[in-house]
Amino acid sequence: MHSGDIGLIGLAVMGQNLILNMNDKGFNVVAYNRTTSKVDQFLANEAKGTKIQGAHSIKELLAKLKTPRKIILLVKAGSAVDDFIGQLIEAGLEKGDIVIDGGNSHYPDSIRRTEELESKGFLFVGSGVSGGEEGARYGPSLMPGGSTAAWPIIKPIFQKTAAQAYGEPCCDWVGETGSGHYVKMVHNGIEYGDMQLIAEAYDILKRGLGLAEDEIADIFLKWNKGVLDSFLIEITANILKFKDDDGEPVVTKILDKAGQKGTVSYGFVFSHSFPVTLIGEAVFARCLSAIKEERVRASKIIDGPKKEPFRGDKQLFIDDLEQALYASKIISYTQGFMLMRETAKEVGWHLNYAGIASMWRGGCIIKSVFLGDITAAYNKNAQLESLLFDDFFNKAIRNAQPGWRRVIAQAVLWGIPTPAFSTALAFFDGYRSEIVPANLLQAQRDYFGAHTFRVLPGKENEKFKTGEDIHVNWTGRGGNVSASTYNT
Amino acid sequence: MHSGDIGLIGLAVMGQNLILNMNDKGFNVVAYNRTTSKVDQFLANEAKGTKIQGAHSIKELLAKLKTPRKIILLVKAGSAVDDFIGQLIEAGLEKGDIVIDGGNSHYPDSIRRTEELESKGFLFVGSGVSGGEEGARYGPSLMPGGSTAAWPIIKPIFQKTAAQAYGEPCCDWVGETGSGHYVKMVHNGIEYGDMQLIAEAYDILKRGLGLAEDEIADIFLKWNKGVLDSFLIEITANILKFKDDDGEPVVTKILDKAGQKGTVSYGFVFSHSFPVTLIGEAVFARCLSAIKEERVRASKIIDGPKKEPFRGDKQLFIDDLEQALYASKIISYTQGFMLMRETAKEVGWHLNYAGIASMWRGGCIIKSVFLGDITAAYNKNAQLESLLFDDFFNKAIRNAQPGWRRVIAQAVLWGIPTPAFSTALAFFDGYRSEIVPANLLQAQRDYFGAHTFRVLPGKENEKFKTGEDIHVNWTGRGGNVSASTYNT
Repeated sequence: MHSGDIGLIGLAVMGQNLILNMNDKGFNVVAYNRTTSKVDQFLANEAKGTKIQGAHSIKELLAKLKTPRKIILLVKAGSAVDDFIGQLIEAGLEKGDIVIDGGNSHYPDSIRRTEELESKGFLFVGSGVSGGEEGARYGPSLMPGGSTAAWPIIKPIFQKTAAQAYGEPCCDWVGETGSGHYVKMVHNGIEYGDMQLIAEAYDILKRGLGLAEDEIADIFLKWNKGVLDSFLIEITANILKFKDDDGEPVVTKILDKAGQKGTVSYGFVFSHSFPVTLIGEAVFARCLSAIKEERVRASKIIDGPKKEPFRGDKQLFIDDLEQALYASKIISYTQGFMLMRETAKEVGWHLNYAGIASMWRGGCIIKSVFLGDITAAYNKNAQLESLLFDDFFNKAIRNAQPGWRRVIAQAVLWGIPTPAFSTALAFFDGYRSEIVPANLLQAQRDYFGAHTFRVLPGKENEKFKTGEDIHVNWTGRGGNVSASTYNT
Repeated sequence: MHSGDIGLIGLAVMGQNLILNMNDKGFNVVAYNRTTSKVDQFLANEAKGTKIQGAHSIKELLAKLKTPRKIILLVKAGSAVDDFIGQLIEAGLEKGDIVIDGGNSHYPDSIRRTEELESKGFLFVGSGVSGGEEGARYGPSLMPGGSTAAWPIIKPIFQKTAAQAYGEPCCDWVGETGSGHYVKMVHNGIEYGDMQLIAEAYDILKRGLGLAEDEIADIFLKWNKGVLDSFLIEITANILKFKDDDGEPVVTKILDKAGQKGTVSYGFVFSHSFPVTLIGEAVFARCLSAIKEERVRASKIIDGPKKEPFRGDKQLFIDDLEQALYASKIISYTQGFMLMRETAKEVGWHLNYAGIASMWRGGCIIKSVFLGDITAAYNKNAQLESLLFDDFFNKAIRNAQPGWRRVIAQAVLWGIPTPAFSTALAFFDGYRSEIVPANLLQAQRDYFGAHTFRVLPGKENEKFKTGEDIHVNWTGRGGNVSASTYNT
C-alpha cells in the first residue's frame, strides 16, 4: 500500500503509453479505468513484467498512492473530467493531493477546475500533452499549468517522462490555472501555420520554378541543415522522395483537400482582439482546399497570368525562398507569443515564455532548432515584448527581408497563391509602421456613425484634446452630437 | 379601435425614428414602451400632429391593431425580446399575428423564435435594419427573414418604409427563420472589408506615391464616377478634403487606432469552414492598429526597405490601383455571398441573393452601384455558384488582374502593408487553382499522425482507391495502421 508514485485514470492508447513511459523512467504507476476489465487486460498484456499496479476502484487507486497523491486523468474532455474529479473527492482525496488533467480540455474549463479544487484544499494541474501515441510512449512535450504549489511535487515525474531535447526536458511549468491547456492550443495553431508556409514554398518551387518532387526534396534537405532545421522540413523532404510502385511520387497522387481536426477550437484564436493572421490564413487555406470541386470548375473559366519561364537565377531565388519561409515563420511565432502575452494580461497569468519555447523543442510536431533561439531570446529577457525586439530575430528578419519581398512579388506576378507568406509580410509592415491608415477608418466611422475619434499625439489643439472623444461635423449637417447613430 | 396598421415596441431613438418614418409613408402606427411615460412624451413632442397612436399596455397595443397584427420589437437583443414575445402571447396574440424583431439579435435566436412562434400558430420575422438613426427616420435597408407566410402581409409597409434606390425599395424577402439577422451580419463583415480596402488604397497613395490628402481626395472623386461609385468612396473624398482651422486635413490629426463595435459577432464568420479572408484580414488590421504604442516602439527598431522615389508613370499606377481596389472588392463580395450560400446549405435556407444585393443598394453604408451589378448577376441566374462565374464579374476581374498584381508587387517592395489586397489576390489565385498544395499537408498529416488521405482523381491504382481512406507507411516503421495517433 501507498507505494505508487502516480496514478492514471483512462486506459485508452494514450493512457497506456504514458503509463509504460513513466514506468520505464522508474516511477511506480497505478492504473485505473472505469471499465475495470481493461485494467486486468492491460496488466496481463502491455504491462506484463513491469512494476505497474492496477486498481479496480477509485478508492483502491487512492489507497495505493503515496501522499500527496498525484493522479493524471486521460479521459474525454468535458463532463467526464468533472465526473472523475467528483469521484476522487468522494473517495477520499486529501488536502494537498494533485489532480492532473492531461486530456484536450478547453482552457476555461481548466481555469474553473483549478479554482474549484483549490477552494477545497486540493491542487489541480491542466497539462497540454503533445506528440500523440508515440510521444506518450517515448517522450511527449508536456505543458503543465495550474496550481503553482503542485509544480515542485510533480516536476521530477513530468520532466523525466517528457521528451528530452538538446539535453533538456521538453517540459517546464507554464503558469497559472488554465495556461497549460491554453498554450497547447496556441501550439496547434502555430503547427497549422508552419505546415501552410511549407506548402506555399513547395507550390512556388513546383509551379513557379517548375521543379520536380525529387529536386524539391533536395532543397528541403539542404534547408534542414540551416535555420529551418525542423521535424516538419525533414518529413517534407522524406515525403517528396517517397515513390509509388510506378516511380511517381506519392504526394502527387494525393487529393488536395486538407482535413482539419478540432477547428472549432480556433474560435478562441479569433475571439481575442489580436491579429494572429498566420493561423487565420492557414485555417482559411485548408477551407479553400476543401472546396475542390468548385476550384476545378473555377480553374476552367477563370484565367490567370500568362505562364512565362523564370528568367532569373534559380539558385538565388531558392535562397530568397528559404529566407521568405524563415521570415514568415518568425512572424508566425512572434504572433503566437504575442497572443499568449495578451491573453496572459487579460487572465492574469505569469507565463514562462522561455519554458514554453523550450517545451516545444522536442516531443511535438513543431520541434525545431528555431525554438532554441526563441528560448534563448526569452532567457535573455523574460519580459521581451516581441520576438522582433530581440537582437537575434531583429537581425534575422532584417537579413531575410529583401528575399522575402522578392519571392512574394514574384508569386503575385506568377499567380501562385501565398496567403501565409503575404499575411506575414503585411503584419510585419503594419507592425513596424508608426502610422497605419486606421485614421481614415476612424474618420469614416465618425462621418457615418458619429463614433468619435482621438487626436494623434503631437496634433492636439483647442478643439482636439488628448483623451477626449472627438466628433467632427463633417457634412455641415446633423449638428455636433457625438452619439452612436449607426449600429454597424 | 383596430385602426392601427402596425405596432412598435421600444421608443429609443431607433424606434421613434422608424415610427415617424412609417407615419410619413402613410401607415397608422401604434407606439408602446415599457416605461409608458415615454409614450406620452413621444406623442406630445416628436409625434405631435401625426396620426401616431400610443398604447399604455400590451393589451391596449393589441386592441388597437388591425388583424393579422403586425408588431415590431425594437428592444435590446437577448432576453428582452423573449420577454416581450411572452407578454404579447399572454396579452392575447392571435393565430396569424406577426411578431417582427428589428433589433440586433443573433441569428440562432431568430431561428429558435421562428420555430417557437410558428409552433403556436403565430408568425415571426427577424429583420436586419441598417442605416442607423438617420436610416430609420428616412429610409433604412431592411432585411426581413422568418415565417414565409408573413412576407405578403408586411411587404407593403416594409418596402415603403425602406430606402429607395434606383427606383426600387431596399427591402426584399431574405429567406427562412434567422436568415434576416444572419444577412445583416454578413453585411457588417463586408462593410469592414470595404473600409479596409479603401484604407489600403489611401496608404499606397500617401506613403507610396507621396501624394497629399487633397490630391488623394481628387482621385477618390474621380473613382466615384466609375466602377467604384459608392457611399464609402464618396465620404472618403469628403473626409480627405476636410480641413482643420489651420488648413491641415483633419484626417491626419486622427489617432490611427481603429475601434470595433460588436466584434464578438465575428466569431460566426470564423466558425464556418469557409474562407472569408477579407473580413478576417479587415478585423485583424483593426486589431493591429489598436496596439499603437507597440507599433511606435517597433517603428524605431525595425527597418523596412530603403525609400526610393516612384519612377513609373503615376497616372498609370493610380489606374492600376483603381483596378486593384475593384478586383479586391469583387473577391470580398464573392466570399460574402459564398458564405451565405454555405450557411444556407447547412441550415436549409433558400436565400434570395438578388434581393439581398438589391437591399444593400441604398439605406446602408455599403450602398454602391456595384451592388446593382451583383443584383443583375443573380437575377440572370438565381443559382449562380459564385460571382466569379458570372460573365460580367468574370470579365471585370480578368481586366483588373494585371494592375491588381502590379500594385501588390509594388506595395510589397515598398514595404506598405496591404493585408486585404493581398489576401483577396491569394484567394483568387487559390480559387482558380485546380491543384493547391494541400496534398502535401495531407501527406504530412498522414506521416506524423496517420490521418490518412484520399487519392487524386485520375491517379487511382490497386493501392490507391477512390473513396478510401489511405494510409502509407512513409518511414518503414510503425506498420500500416490507419489510426489517428496524433491529436493535433
